[in-house]
Amino acid sequence: MSPQGMPPIISSMTTSLRSTLDFLLYDWLRAASLTARPRFADHSRETFDAVLDTCERIAREKYAPFNRTVDTQEPRFDGEKVILPQCTHDARQAYADSGMLGAAQDYELGGMQLPYVVESAANSFFACASISIGSNLLTTGNANAILVHGTPMQQRVFAANEFNGRWAGTMCLSEPQAGSSLSDIATRAEPDGAGFEADPLGPRYRLRGNKMWISAGDHELTENIVHLVLAKIPGPDGKPVPGVKGISLFIVPKKLVDTEGKLTGERNDVALAGLNHKLGWRGTTNTLLNFGEGRYPVRAGQGGGLDGRGAGAIGYLVGKPGEGLKCMFHMMNEARISIGMAATMLGLAGYYASLDYARTRLQGRPIGSGGKDASSPQVRLIEHADVKRMLLAQKSYGEGALALNLYCARLVDEGRTGDAGAAADARLLLEVLTPIAKSWPSEFCLEANSLAIQIHGGYGYTRDFPVEQYWRDNRLNMIHEGTHGIQAADLLGRKVVMQGGAGLQLLARTVAVTIAKARQRPGLAAWAGQLEQALRDVIDATRAAWATGNAGEALANAVPYMQAFGHVVLAWMWLDVADSVLAKDASLSIAASVGRMGAARYFFHYELPKTGAWLAVVCTRDATCADMAEDAF
Amino acid sequence: MSPQGMPPIISSMTTSLRSTLDFLLYDWLRAASLTARPRFADHSRETFDAVLDTCERIAREKYAPFNRTVDTQEPRFDGEKVILPQCTHDARQAYADSGMLGAAQDYELGGMQLPYVVESAANSFFACASISIGSNLLTTGNANAILVHGTPMQQRVFAANEFNGRWAGTMCLSEPQAGSSLSDIATRAEPDGAGFEADPLGPRYRLRGNKMWISAGDHELTENIVHLVLAKIPGPDGKPVPGVKGISLFIVPKKLVDTEGKLTGERNDVALAGLNHKLGWRGTTNTLLNFGEGRYPVRAGQGGGLDGRGAGAIGYLVGKPGEGLKCMFHMMNEARISIGMAATMLGLAGYYASLDYARTRLQGRPIGSGGKDASSPQVRLIEHADVKRMLLAQKSYGEGALALNLYCARLVDEGRTGDAGAAADARLLLEVLTPIAKSWPSEFCLEANSLAIQIHGGYGYTRDFPVEQYWRDNRLNMIHEGTHGIQAADLLGRKVVMQGGAGLQLLARTVAVTIAKARQRPGLAAWAGQLEQALRDVIDATRAAWATGNAGEALANAVPYMQAFGHVVLAWMWLDVADSVLAKDASLSIAASVGRMGAARYFFHYELPKTGAWLAVVCTRDATCADMAEDAF
Repeated sequence: MSPQGMPPIISSMTTSLRSTLDFLLYDWLRAASLTARPRFADHSRETFDAVLDTCERIAREKYAPFNRTVDTQEPRFDGEKVILPQCTHDARQAYADSGMLGAAQDYELGGMQLPYVVESAANSFFACASISIGSNLLTTGNANAILVHGTPMQQRVFAANEFNGRWAGTMCLSEPQAGSSLSDIATRAEPDGAGFEADPLGPRYRLRGNKMWISAGDHELTENIVHLVLAKIPGPDGKPVPGVKGISLFIVPKKLVDTEGKLTGERNDVALAGLNHKLGWRGTTNTLLNFGEGRYPVRAGQGGGLDGRGAGAIGYLVGKPGEGLKCMFHMMNEARISIGMAATMLGLAGYYASLDYARTRLQGRPIGSGGKDASSPQVRLIEHADVKRMLLAQKSYGEGALALNLYCARLVDEGRTGDAGAAADARLLLEVLTPIAKSWPSEFCLEANSLAIQIHGGYGYTRDFPVEQYWRDNRLNMIHEGTHGIQAADLLGRKVVMQGGAGLQLLARTVAVTIAKARQRPGLAAWAGQLEQALRDVIDATRAAWATGNAGEALANAVPYMQAFGHVVLAWMWLDVADSVLAKDASLSIAASVGRMGAARYFFHYELPKTGAWLAVVCTRDATCADMAEDAF
Repeated sequence: MSPQGMPPIISSMTTSLRSTLDFLLYDWLRAASLTARPRFADHSRETFDAVLDTCERIAREKYAPFNRTVDTQEPRFDGEKVILPQCTHDARQAYADSGMLGAAQDYELGGMQLPYVVESAANSFFACASISIGSNLLTTGNANAILVHGTPMQQRVFAANEFNGRWAGTMCLSEPQAGSSLSDIATRAEPDGAGFEADPLGPRYRLRGNKMWISAGDHELTENIVHLVLAKIPGPDGKPVPGVKGISLFIVPKKLVDTEGKLTGERNDVALAGLNHKLGWRGTTNTLLNFGEGRYPVRAGQGGGLDGRGAGAIGYLVGKPGEGLKCMFHMMNEARISIGMAATMLGLAGYYASLDYARTRLQGRPIGSGGKDASSPQVRLIEHADVKRMLLAQKSYGEGALALNLYCARLVDEGRTGDAGAAADARLLLEVLTPIAKSWPSEFCLEANSLAIQIHGGYGYTRDFPVEQYWRDNRLNMIHEGTHGIQAADLLGRKVVMQGGAGLQLLARTVAVTIAKARQRPGLAAWAGQLEQALRDVIDATRAAWATGNAGEALANAVPYMQAFGHVVLAWMWLDVADSVLAKDASLSIAASVGRMGAARYFFHYELPKTGAWLAVVCTRDATCADMAEDAF
């Protein structure tokens, strides 16, 4: 048993995370008002709370106690099957039993018609307790993509069996030679014989190729695994169409199924070629999969088809040929927000752990208190200003990122259930914010985890305390589902300039509403002015970056631009949250209000001023990096 | 065999590290001119180069190939002995055989009388190849402390046998309940009987207590281990004297020895109580040691002494009673500079690894080149501006930190062999720079390692590439030998205010020399002006922090102060290096000159502007963190 035991993080989860979620959901985002909408009419704050209670309990019982277990008992492959610790099976089962896989879905699909913002809040307990157990995140995203782009039969056979927990889902985009560069994928899909189009599960193809970095790509947690695979259908000349235009999307089940969703007993030709051995996030397998290499040869399709065996893995086309990336982007955007939430919750998990540690560990005496006299007893870490600084930074990063991610989730609900104008605005705003929702927590909640280690001193560097694992787990989030560089190019190269800059203008108008509101609130005017200036600086930098119209010049400093943009968005979140705090508790009579105001103040005093340095190189289109000669490194 | 193999890092070490060291040592710091001094008169650039050649070769052959081995084959204790992989024994032996343990020592001690700056440069090869193999760093520091504070007999018996490689050394300060707070140590030392003062090895005491975080605290790499231990001698009332005044320093050998340095065959009562299981740096044991618990009872001392056994571990006083911390600080200061160098070399190791990867890995097409056409071949990572940015940041951090550490090493030489005035100045300047030399690389070369992971994409998150290990190894450096918070309090609370601010004034005068020189150099005037302003800002912030004379207020933001101070010091280093580059190669005719100017430019454009945000909270003595109520977190 490691010294940290389980109580600390759970006690903080119970006291802090839940109360933070309650405040953000109900006081700030007014989630209860969603029940006035037809889709959510059967719900009430009570039903929302019941979901939160259930998830908190399952996370406490089935996830948190096993977070170190899944780190030390890394997945292994015995040649036949992937071995995961029993706790992973139990956690997955408890999650599926809770109904959370289909929480946001229609009643007809067995769902709860829960608002996405409540679903996100509820899922945050699992992410905080153990980010890497299981494979639920991608299963829901996968099934959602099939719901949107698949045929009714595909929805019934595949999506429904993912939502109900029978099967899991994956997202197979990258290949060993094509990570960020999806246009270069080489997996081929060829029609499976003459009658290939007539298969009731969808036009039937044979796929051959290798897919890398596939999370939950193989395991025995579920009866079957539904792979969503990007592949290229050869053109009339027999060659794959270059670029993204040639990419199509396919459902490739690990085990073949019939139209009733029953396993046919035949294995599809999807073979595990290797497990990646990672720095962290070890509760989920990460795999290299071979499609159609002949390891599990599949007999010729019923529709006529190929002679003999081993001609490829069976896959069913989803949507139209050549539109695979468009279909997949639906899933990727959801995944990006989920990654932001994962990073956020790891940040908060470290915060809670280091807060508990700082509250109990005795060390040293406060500076300037006259207490340097060594005969006085040592004080607790939390009594030192520098420790408070490290705690407040974590709170500011983690709770700020949580606010942003819940705000984005609320936009998803607005985009789905708001009136036409509001829905369109919500979708546009979400487009602009997605790169920030993904990248900002990945970077700054990782920094939060480093501060959590620092507070623990030498103990934080040992595997006896949970914080080093949070830091390792969190390092993944700047990489997967689009690296930092990809997010930055998406933001500055596409999101803020698309539709003549409509997204950026909408963001500016939305931030301006917060600024105007805060100006009227005693105590917030200075921050409102600070945010107004920072927003103007970002808009000016956007213009300056694109002043020459040369994308190479504009995007050379896209990452510093994204860092500054993210800090402005977070300052906006904190100002809006602070306004809600004061609206509810103007005299700061409760400790939580003091805490939220302190975290907001920290952000405005310590963080927002950093944007100047980041934007300076954007404004000047600084070419120091871009012009560096290769042989000079 | 992992994909990274050994060639990449070694090829970069050979081409880049050696050429960087040559430039910094000879062109910039003019190390060859030291041979004009009597102590180094037998040396020449050729003998210096021979040492560098030897160390580079041993690092390549005995260290680099085994860096992953020591990470995966963590030290373990079989109940009797600590088991380390064979490669660790081989590396230690090769290092000892090279004579580097005593490189800087007098000829009479078997040393080479090498300048410390050359010794540091030579040792950097080992740190780059595998930071954690062996235990050499502390052995040299331990022996140096005995040389300065020990009796001739202690020097001959203990220090000499550490320099010659027979024995290793440790530094036993921290205890489980007293990490940063040394005044709270509880280990007791009591005189070993009536004749205790007459022991030829030094006044003989019996020690009882527990020491935590002891690096290389137990192993079988050497015949014996010389522990330098801080403990308290009880006062007349039988109680330990409170505070640091009660602390004394003792030599406590693992195995007892006679005055000839031969093992007596008797074990001292120092028992391994546990190995810490760490996030990284796994090639060196980190231990909890019990002194005098009775596991290896020692018979009563020859000088009379105690009845029976188990009354404590035998220790010999070094220096005077109550001056232990003063004696140990000598060792700690050296250790702090070594930690800075360790962090630096990990940063550079990641830089070289990611540079090699970026030069070969194909991925995507450059933005704005018209090459978005997917039918064009993919380009190498290094052709992307954002990848160049991440490489240049690493180069700027790593080579800048190397310059700083070598500059500090050169100050050590000046302090030892310069004329009286120069020597005093060098020692004072070193006092001010030590917290920066330790903290800045720990923070920013860790960030460099994170960028090295990022460049590798998903592969960087796997244990098949070396970069994730560098990042884990480097995380220790902000913690050991005085945490970031301790360094910051030392800098702002002591170093810049001591002697009426004489240290800070000396630093300002020294930086001003560089600024004046750079103003005359075409192309450097703007950076000179930028540095002048930044230096003025730091001085102003120092004054503002202390304006109320309240240490609590002044030091509440000591860490942001140290970050800004560090960036100013690094900008100074880069400006001075840039001046040397242009002095030698004004037309930038060689690629390395272009590279150094690029890294300097990166620092002035992207990094130095960050100081504004850090200093703002210092200048206002911002109390956001210090005033935060505990229950509000």
